[in-house]
Amino acid sequence: MLSFESDYIEGCHPEILRRLSETNMEQLSGYGSDCYTESAKKKIAKACGIDNFEQIYFLVGGTQTNQIIADTVLKPYEGVIAAVSGHINAHEAGAIEYTGHKVLPLPSHEGKIDALELKEFLSEFYADENSSHMVYPGMVYISYPTEYGTLYTKRELSTLSAICRENHISLFLDGARLGYGLESPDSDMTLKDIASLTDVFYIGGTKVGSLCGEAVVFTKDNMPEHFTTLVKKHGALLAKGRLLGIQFDTLFTDDLYFKISAHAIEMANLLRSALVKKYDILMDPDGHSVSNQIFVILRNSEMQKLKEKVAFSFWEKYDESHTVARFATSWATKKEDVEKLIDLL
Amino acid sequence: MLSFESDYIEGCHPEILRRLSETNMEQLSGYGSDCYTESAKKKIAKACGIDNFEQIYFLVGGTQTNQIIADTVLKPYEGVIAAVSGHINAHEAGAIEYTGHKVLPLPSHEGKIDALELKEFLSEFYADENSSHMVYPGMVYISYPTEYGTLYTKRELSTLSAICRENHISLFLDGARLGYGLESPDSDMTLKDIASLTDVFYIGGTKVGSLCGEAVVFTKDNMPEHFTTLVKKHGALLAKGRLLGIQFDTLFTDDLYFKISAHAIEMANLLRSALVKKYDILMDPDGHSVSNQIFVILRNSEMQKLKEKVAFSFWEKYDESHTVARFATSWATKKEDVEKLIDLL
Amino acid sequence: MLSFESDYIEGCHPEILRRLSETNMEQLSGYGSDCYTESAKKKIAKACGIDNFEQIYFLVGGTQTNQIIADTVLKPYEGVIAAVSGHINAHEAGAIEYTGHKVLPLPSHEGKIDALELKEFLSEFYADENSSHMVYPGMVYISYPTEYGTLYTKRELSTLSAICRENHISLFLDGARLGYGLESPDSDMTLKDIASLTDVFYIGGTKVGSLCGEAVVFTKDNMPEHFTTLVKKHGALLAKGRLLGIQFDTLFTDDLYFKISAHAIEMANLLRSALVKKYDILMDPDGHSVSNQIFVILRNSEMQKLKEKVAFSFWEKYDESHTVARFATSWATKKEDVEKLIDLL
Amino acid sequence: MLSFESDYIEGCHPEILRRLSETNMEQLSGYGSDCYTESAKKKIAKACGIDNFEQIYFLVGGTQTNQIIADTVLKPYEGVIAAVSGHINAHEAGAIEYTGHKVLPLPSHEGKIDALELKEFLSEFYADENSSHMVYPGMVYISYPTEYGTLYTKRELSTLSAICRENHISLFLDGARLGYGLESPDSDMTLKDIASLTDVFYIGGTKVGSLCGEAVVFTKDNMPEHFTTLVKKHGALLAKGRLLGIQFDTLFTDDLYFKISAHAIEMANLLRSALVKKYDILMDPDGHSVSNQIFVILRNSEMQKLKEKVAFSFWEKYDESHTVARFATSWATKKEDVEKLIDLL
Repeated sequence: MLSFESDYIEGCHPEILRRLSETNMEQLSGYGSDCYTESAKKKIAKACGIDNFEQIYFLVGGTQTNQIIADTVLKPYEGVIAAVSGHINAHEAGAIEYTGHKVLPLPSHEGKIDALELKEFLSEFYADENSSHMVYPGMVYISYPTEYGTLYTKRELSTLSAICRENHISLFLDGARLGYGLESPDSDMTLKDIASLTDVFYIGGTKVGSLCGEAVVFTKDNMPEHFTTLVKKHGALLAKGRLLGIQFDTLFTDDLYFKISAHAIEMANLLRSALVKKYDILMDPDGHSVSNQIFVILRNSEMQKLKEKVAFSFWEKYDESHTVARFATSWATKKEDVEKLIDLL
Repeated sequence: MLSFESDYIEGCHPEILRRLSETNMEQLSGYGSDCYTESAKKKIAKACGIDNFEQIYFLVGGTQTNQIIADTVLKPYEGVIAAVSGHINAHEAGAIEYTGHKVLPLPSHEGKIDALELKEFLSEFYADENSSHMVYPGMVYISYPTEYGTLYTKRELSTLSAICRENHISLFLDGARLGYGLESPDSDMTLKDIASLTDVFYIGGTKVGSLCGEAVVFTKDNMPEHFTTLVKKHGALLAKGRLLGIQFDTLFTDDLYFKISAHAIEMANLLRSALVKKYDILMDPDGHSVSNQIFVILRNSEMQKLKEKVAFSFWEKYDESHTVARFATSWATKKEDVEKLIDLL
Repeated sequence: MLSFESDYIEGCHPEILRRLSETNMEQLSGYGSDCYTESAKKKIAKACGIDNFEQIYFLVGGTQTNQIIADTVLKPYEGVIAAVSGHINAHEAGAIEYTGHKVLPLPSHEGKIDALELKEFLSEFYADENSSHMVYPGMVYISYPTEYGTLYTKRELSTLSAICRENHISLFLDGARLGYGLESPDSDMTLKDIASLTDVFYIGGTKVGSLCGEAVVFTKDNMPEHFTTLVKKHGALLAKGRLLGIQFDTLFTDDLYFKISAHAIEMANLLRSALVKKYDILMDPDGHSVSNQIFVILRNSEMQKLKEKVAFSFWEKYDESHTVARFATSWATKKEDVEKLIDLL
Repeated sequence: MLSFESDYIEGCHPEILRRLSETNMEQLSGYGSDCYTESAKKKIAKACGIDNFEQIYFLVGGTQTNQIIADTVLKPYEGVIAAVSGHINAHEAGAIEYTGHKVLPLPSHEGKIDALELKEFLSEFYADENSSHMVYPGMVYISYPTEYGTLYTKRELSTLSAICRENHISLFLDGARLGYGLESPDSDMTLKDIASLTDVFYIGGTKVGSLCGEAVVFTKDNMPEHFTTLVKKHGALLAKGRLLGIQFDTLFTDDLYFKISAHAIEMANLLRSALVKKYDILMDPDGHSVSNQIFVILRNSEMQKLKEKVAFSFWEKYDESHTVARFATSWATKKEDVEKLIDLL
């Protein structure tokens, strides 16, 4: 059966497997101290416009990365501001709270937080006579693209960045699907812009071509002290660091990461233009849901019928008789599959 | 200067000091194993209609109590549902999250949660195909009176209780000001009702006549195993347990707890009837803000002037030109002080 | 029945009750911002030779204090070094580990750690090629007097202090029974010495005359940022801070703390000189067990018999047929009770 | 240069790469719900003699696995008993304590704990009048082979198992190198014996042929409730669960896991027989260090010279002039490399 269930249903880009095979019997030291990890870090640093490649670190998965960044960057009296719909607030089983830190929710505007609301939240906090009895805001978490596939504009991100700087708090960007965001025609940002405007972000591998792996970038020489030990304490230090290093080295060779991301966007746009003819699309169909995920509002009966022919994700209840379904494309989506689906609609 | 700043600005009811003095040189064993602690537990059990007095435990403060109950009753994959305005969500510096558990916020309706919204939240959670990636709701936290001084009716509490039972989650009532709630003319509940409808609650001492201390009541023989050890692990086991035992023994002798609570309510009503003539009162002035706290909406200029004559609390910004101020009475409020304040208005 | 079970079996010094009563109806602001708390801090600062009285903080109990100091002073990759017999390692139900930090045990020499062993531990840690996979030593915890009543000499403490300074780690002294240590004839230190040689320590109230309360002293202007918020997050912020402030203000008026400590030592020496004639005393009876606790090695049969006449503590199994029993004196011990016990031996 | 530095310096068994490639473009659902994961669980269940394959779970790494098992199996008042030399006590950066649980150390006897000492520890704990102020022992952690390469006999493991059962605590076996233990000629146990005698254990993949991955086996239908959610909360849920499923499915097809383990042991024995002629081997060279790690005592000068020709691990300081070095073989060790090393000695 056709599947557009998520962007992690296939294995990895074949070039990754080729390089894993090619290097397989080389004897390399562990825990990320191998040459491929170093090479990958250097390539990513260059792509980000970062001087110090040692400010880059590879972790295995997204929730793990969010958890470790929040726990190691926040001070013990601080929490992290996020949209209500933010992954860390909604879908990580309390992984942030497990580290002892509160998520401070702001309203979600199609997945994004609003700069004015952030400003107001911060100024009210500091004005409150009881703020010492409250959780200090220590970081702003955003995702790019958001959980609804939307994108901050460069201007929006610059404003958030300025607010964070003024308030001496960190801006953290979850880039689990970063490639798909950057390659969207609606994006007006580059990887260097992201690196310049945030304090820490990560380049998602799991959803963009690798078997696993996220590349964390500390952009302001602000990697927490003894970071490897902290990662180990979280149970997240990979013995065979080569597995992450080789994957990211491959993805950042010859712009592979960006090329395969662009492919996913092309496929999404092909599919979207067909879906929009038949169904309502969540949020303005003419622009906002612009990366590799498409959120379609289906009558519950329609949904059941469609489910027999193609796999997709339940996203959320829309109203009593409608459901939001998610169709995702990825680096691995075949054009023929998109066309087959279009024929089925 | 006159002060209506809070209900914990005086020491304790003089009878407590008398009994602390009277028993001072008695040699008693530590950690709550003394005879006064046992006596207090028995009196409270009787007042609550609980058979097993060993299901009662004395802790020092309110945030500590909320933290320990949440941490020891919740399973590790669970969080606690509370009104956005709930003390554990807003004003405890992340003490719940520090234990690794998330607070799951519901809208606040004058401090209360709505049964239908709770039901909807729970049924959506269980219907969600991704619920295993989310924090399981394991407990409902309410306060009585709420942070806005309002009271659940017996019918409302019964409904919440039934919802919790159906969903196999605990209902926890924060009674930091329980006496002031129960003695409000608007309350239609007794201590036994509270005990019968909740799974765990506490009878606040700190704000109702004692120097410190909260009496936790597990109402369904559901005190967590090795509770003393868990309290110790939280750093909350008091060596001289007598300090808590003697205080609660005093408060529950000859209904002292209820008598002094009733006095606070009488003083609040006297003050409220004067305030309402001059100012707007937050929420319907004819009924809802019915216990010992009065939330008055003051023009910012008025507030400044009033502050010169009487101490009260900043509560929250109402709008650009108005602020909500809180006036609290307590067991210790003198009628002559209320009258002086009324003269000043 | 006579009791020498512990140094916290009575209430508090009567002067404390007198002052609590005297100030009881004064309206004071909460959370330690009252005038008595400030006065107490100033007196303690003066007694310690500390310039900044705001580096002093009152907490309720000993385990709570150890937990909060460890958690707020240690960095997240650090643990705390302590003697195997140290209270934090043995008798706090895992309160340190609950904060996510490991206790790194060193051998106990009659309750004390050995400077050479500490030095060796630290140098081996730093020399280990795998140290980034281990818990970094971040603090040394000692108690004065120790859990076995023994005392570090000024020279020993100076050596430990120098080792800590060289290794950039904190020296933390648990003074739950500090008064009894300082007033021992075997002590060659003053409160000012303690303040000068440690980074943080506390002056125990619970065991030395108060109902509850420990006075934490940060000696190097090193109180952690937003300490009140951190205390709140731990559930340890007392609403009626006056309870702690007034007690310590009383104890540090006219040297009351030291006078009542000296009394306990006098009583202990009276008792020790009688016990040593009949029983073996743990550790060299001629010097080491020198503060207010006496550890007596009793045949199990003797112990049973003695237990019928006087209450004391089981300390630990000595061998198959002997047990170590602890007799404690305190500020409250009556000379006539000591004499009665001596007659009974 | 030759390297015997560890058993994780190569990638993975080529058959794993072949199967990853073969299945790469199949669309599989995430988080371990794919068919290969199910197949792997079934094969492992069969090999273990376990009825319910759903009691098996794949995690990414060893420290992560130890951390999650300890945290989810222990009750909140419990800690885990381990040898001082146990990996969780010594080399996991405090990952167990990070979960709020204490490691309770017992002496190490060549890496093993002694049944009598365990029994004594437990009976002293339960006999202690203060045990409610202490960390309850809730689990025994052992490793097989141990950190020193030694093996418990079936009789020893049976005794530990019986002690745990009598005391109602869990027995947890860390099998990071399980294959190398079971294939040692000195082992008198099978995988089924391990499954039968422990409550939970894991079959290490990272060090025995896979890129990453450990297979946790709950042997008594005792997998903690909502285990997937707990794994997610720990940041350890892998999106592409296929990566673990396919690897373990491969390792447990045609006994590959055992065959490659046997090869490592053969290589170790070849090397050991050469090393023992020239150097002292830690522990009795005639029997105890019997799996794939060889601990050689080298004069520091010898060590420096040898290091120029072959890579191995610093293990620990032996004395002022000697060091313990570790040589490890693995599934990937080539016979010609062992022979080259022998020629170099």
